[in-house]
Amino acid sequence: MTKLSLKSALSPLCVLSSALLISAQAYAFEALPDKAPVPKDNPMTPEKVALGQQLFFDPRLSADGTVSCNTCHNVMSSGTDNRPVSAGVAGQNGGRSAPTVWNAAFLTAQFWDGRAATLEDQAKGPILNPIEMGMPHKELAVKRIESIPGYAEQFAKVFGEKSGVTYDNIAKAIATYERTLITPNSSFDRYLKGNKKALSKEAQAGMKLVEATGCTSCHNGPNFAGPIDLPVGQGFYQKFPVYPGSSYETKYNLSNDSGRFQVTKDEKDKNVWRVPTWRNIALTAPYFHNGSVETLDEAVRVMAKTQLNKELSDGDVTSIVAFLNSLTGEFPQQTLPRIPDLSNSSLVTMSDIKK
Amino acid sequence: MTKLSLKSALSPLCVLSSALLISAQAYAFEALPDKAPVPKDNPMTPEKVALGQQLFFDPRLSADGTVSCNTCHNVMSSGTDNRPVSAGVAGQNGGRSAPTVWNAAFLTAQFWDGRAATLEDQAKGPILNPIEMGMPHKELAVKRIESIPGYAEQFAKVFGEKSGVTYDNIAKAIATYERTLITPNSSFDRYLKGNKKALSKEAQAGMKLVEATGCTSCHNGPNFAGPIDLPVGQGFYQKFPVYPGSSYETKYNLSNDSGRFQVTKDEKDKNVWRVPTWRNIALTAPYFHNGSVETLDEAVRVMAKTQLNKELSDGDVTSIVAFLNSLTGEFPQQTLPRIPDLSNSSLVTMSDIKK
Repeated sequence: MTKLSLKSALSPLCVLSSALLISAQAYAFEALPDKAPVPKDNPMTPEKVALGQQLFFDPRLSADGTVSCNTCHNVMSSGTDNRPVSAGVAGQNGGRSAPTVWNAAFLTAQFWDGRAATLEDQAKGPILNPIEMGMPHKELAVKRIESIPGYAEQFAKVFGEKSGVTYDNIAKAIATYERTLITPNSSFDRYLKGNKKALSKEAQAGMKLVEATGCTSCHNGPNFAGPIDLPVGQGFYQKFPVYPGSSYETKYNLSNDSGRFQVTKDEKDKNVWRVPTWRNIALTAPYFHNGSVETLDEAVRVMAKTQLNKELSDGDVTSIVAFLNSLTGEFPQQTLPRIPDLSNSSLVTMSDIKK
Repeated sequence: MTKLSLKSALSPLCVLSSALLISAQAYAFEALPDKAPVPKDNPMTPEKVALGQQLFFDPRLSADGTVSCNTCHNVMSSGTDNRPVSAGVAGQNGGRSAPTVWNAAFLTAQFWDGRAATLEDQAKGPILNPIEMGMPHKELAVKRIESIPGYAEQFAKVFGEKSGVTYDNIAKAIATYERTLITPNSSFDRYLKGNKKALSKEAQAGMKLVEATGCTSCHNGPNFAGPIDLPVGQGFYQKFPVYPGSSYETKYNLSNDSGRFQVTKDEKDKNVWRVPTWRNIALTAPYFHNGSVETLDEAVRVMAKTQLNKELSDGDVTSIVAFLNSLTGEFPQQTLPRIPDLSNSSLVTMSDIKK
């Protein structure tokens, strides 16, 4: 098994969101765990998962009834919308590309800029974002959901009669469903677990190359997005580009968005981004925070140049892409949810859809 | 079992799309069949259903990758979007309310104005409609689908190597999936089949009232939308309003849209519409072709006045609504489809989403 020392992993290239001491133990390529970490204040139950799935697919959480969580994070495919940037209510396009919801439960910072620490915090954002789901305030989201008997009953059962439908509980249910969205048993995982035939020679060559080239100095851990067990609030970030001035930077507008700086207003966070996962990366084109790069081959070249100042041969790119393809996991079969209906009356009215 | 003579059913109020002779046999309230009629040139297979389901949920059939069939005909709930009118690509609102896809397989005319005779013909419309899915031409839809290996393989298997991915076959697969969308075992159906406790007294009173009032002169047959076995091309239509000049007509803009006239350009088709189903009507608010009426109670009052020149008491409305609620069926559990992914590359590019 290829080993990678944590010291090199955290050498100048990768930055934690604040000073963090980690003992310098060695670690290796790691398989994806079967289960995601669960916060103490939001335990998982099958009923909460089922409720969260319904909410995840419910467009009535958007102002005009057109956008659900699944619209941009399509769990029926890659967990993204495979668009350069996402479309919200009233045909508005956002400024960033939707990250995949698959395995997001292993990330220690949510959103490209890490502005939410947990899945629960993340779920509260898009509903109120004026260009995403466009709800004017959380009270309207709560009012909509509690007016639907099928939801009110489930919230009472899952969260207790007293808490019932609250904005926090809506987010808790959605986050709980998202913790089930894990894609185990990729070729890479089966290889790591001993099936040496699971990885093609090309992919094995790529596996060595991503380490030798330096890619794994950031893309490490079981989710290839850094440690999965950092304390809440600690994200795993990286400047992008590290080496400015390349033609890629101009061609793909890589520096136009200041990234995490918009959250912290700290100069050292300019163009700093959460390290994204490599899991299922073959399926989540187009690439980068602005979705500017259409193919994985090109994304690999861009990263080598902008982050490591290296120019890869076509052969190396092919091998690395073969390795990245081995990270496509198995998507668990799910039942199509039934979204609770309101009887005899409509919830989204003409005044909600007129601008 | 309450009987309704076909002669009264087809008395002046209801019109077929052209002269059609039906023998004057008596018929009665009818349960929903378990299976829909299947055209000879598009036989059902499990593989075709599965393919059709994937296509039904695939937003890449829209120009900018945001709108799938399911966006407006949400099978996770009522088979509609529960919006007054539907939203297509780029936040455009259409002019009519999405009819439910559940039990649409029993309709002999598709779209509110009957401009498609079959589910196959219907499926070809929205993809190319500039304010719905907005594909510039069918060749692009075909090109997109055939570029995705997971689709190309299935089309070859389902339709044979030679036909493969064609626009007709895309529509055939979608229509085949839609033929599985049937909601049996409503309280009403169980009552008809002998369980006399399945209908409340209120609903039973409503059942008598819809016949006595005259509603069933159009809303008859197992789908409450007229005969389900008319020859292809024969729809079951009705003028709306039959009695013009009511305050409802003004309040809800009932006559602004000329309906079937837009298809036939025949004066006698002005404000003529396909008779819509009553199945699951409790869940498909808001009501009418323009989605102008928010509640089922009001919809019942409007219909009695505009179609039969009757003013119902509040008690009668309550009974009729109770009966209509008994027409909510069971929605069969389905597996969440996996939509075939394209590897290492994106399909919807920045040029597709920029206007």
